[in-house]
Amino acid sequence: MTRILYELCGNDAERPFSPFCWRAKMAILHKGLEFEIAPRPFTEIADIAPEAGKTVPILVDGERTICDSWAIAEYLEDSYPDRPSLFGGAGGRAAAKFVDSWANASVSALLVRLIVKDVHDILAPADQAYFRQTREARFGQTLEEVQHDREARVAEIAKALVPMNIMLRSQPFIGGNNPLYGDYSLFGTLQWARVSSPLKLIEADTPVADWFERCLDLFDGSARRIPAAG
Amino acid sequence: MTRILYELCGNDAERPFSPFCWRAKMAILHKGLEFEIAPRPFTEIADIAPEAGKTVPILVDGERTICDSWAIAEYLEDSYPDRPSLFGGAGGRAAAKFVDSWANASVSALLVRLIVKDVHDILAPADQAYFRQTREARFGQTLEEVQHDREARVAEIAKALVPMNIMLRSQPFIGGNNPLYGDYSLFGTLQWARVSSPLKLIEADTPVADWFERCLDLFDGSARRIPAAG
Repeated sequence: MTRILYELCGNDAERPFSPFCWRAKMAILHKGLEFEIAPRPFTEIADIAPEAGKTVPILVDGERTICDSWAIAEYLEDSYPDRPSLFGGAGGRAAAKFVDSWANASVSALLVRLIVKDVHDILAPADQAYFRQTREARFGQTLEEVQHDREARVAEIAKALVPMNIMLRSQPFIGGNNPLYGDYSLFGTLQWARVSSPLKLIEADTPVADWFERCLDLFDGSARRIPAAG
Repeated sequence: MTRILYELCGNDAERPFSPFCWRAKMAILHKGLEFEIAPRPFTEIADIAPEAGKTVPILVDGERTICDSWAIAEYLEDSYPDRPSLFGGAGGRAAAKFVDSWANASVSALLVRLIVKDVHDILAPADQAYFRQTREARFGQTLEEVQHDREARVAEIAKALVPMNIMLRSQPFIGGNNPLYGDYSLFGTLQWARVSSPLKLIEADTPVADWFERCLDLFDGSARRIPAAG
């Protein structure tokens, strides 16, 4: 049986950066499953599995095709119950949905305004045109305007991450003593920034900086093997 | 065996408002345990059980005395495993610690700046002097200054609650189909505002407004029996 994770790539197919694809990849690694990576640029995503969805990640697992990082996490948990759990029980699964929503709404949504032009710059030329058009329509500004004066807004990210710094006084991961899917939700968001942008986003010597390093070490340093941008 | 929850009160002992005490009370109700309430003003808390701690809630459960809302939740879960779970498993307990930290750092910390003078106003006279002195030292401003122009800052609360509105598209509670401790963490914060301040904080007709109503309905409307301020 072949297991394929379709994920987003830029001009360099060896530097995956999508926060959602990183979540899915960490989830598959957590389950200890073999898989192949199929990198695709933005402008080829709609053709991967139109019946399943038009965004990546898309996981093809034998006969099954699953679109969306959260759906993939739930699919993996339900299909491979004998492998390490991604949620640590029903309460953990429900709370992970909150953590995932928080990572999107309270961290990624701030972060994109600091790195969107950098993300543009690592895309292949055909993708750059698509990305600029769709994102500028969404923001009502040029990518350059969205990202302008970003250094002044790095403090917003630090503020958004305060709950992590508080929680990390009590335990090393959102999952407790070991990482669970909630960790991968936030990790995906911050790895997106690490791979796409030279901007220094996580304040050094904070608990969340140490937690991020622990996540980079997981699965034999799988995520660390992609060098940081800049 | 007598089970007593010491909680904070203002001038009217029938209107408990502390966010941390509400979390503990909802947790005890969730476990279906009998208990008595012992309301205490700020200036009498240090004498309740100095060996256990100097903040409320304090739970005295037979021979045991437990201080701090999170410690009480863990104590209840470990001591009454046959009662309904507060966390829904190990992953849920760990993630609840994150939700609790988020409710404190990303919601309560904003909220206090909108309602701190209102909280002062519901205290007994001796407590008012203590509260004003300690809080003004903390903020470096008078209570009136901290709360000034608060209507302009209500939007910050709505923004902080966006993760809830996203999550609630998929499930009715942070705990999933039923509430767990993470729900009580945020509920305590918002009930604090509801009981202390006439300021309208939760935007009507939003998913989080509906969720808050569902929480007020729990345990035969226990929390709803305290009328809203104003």
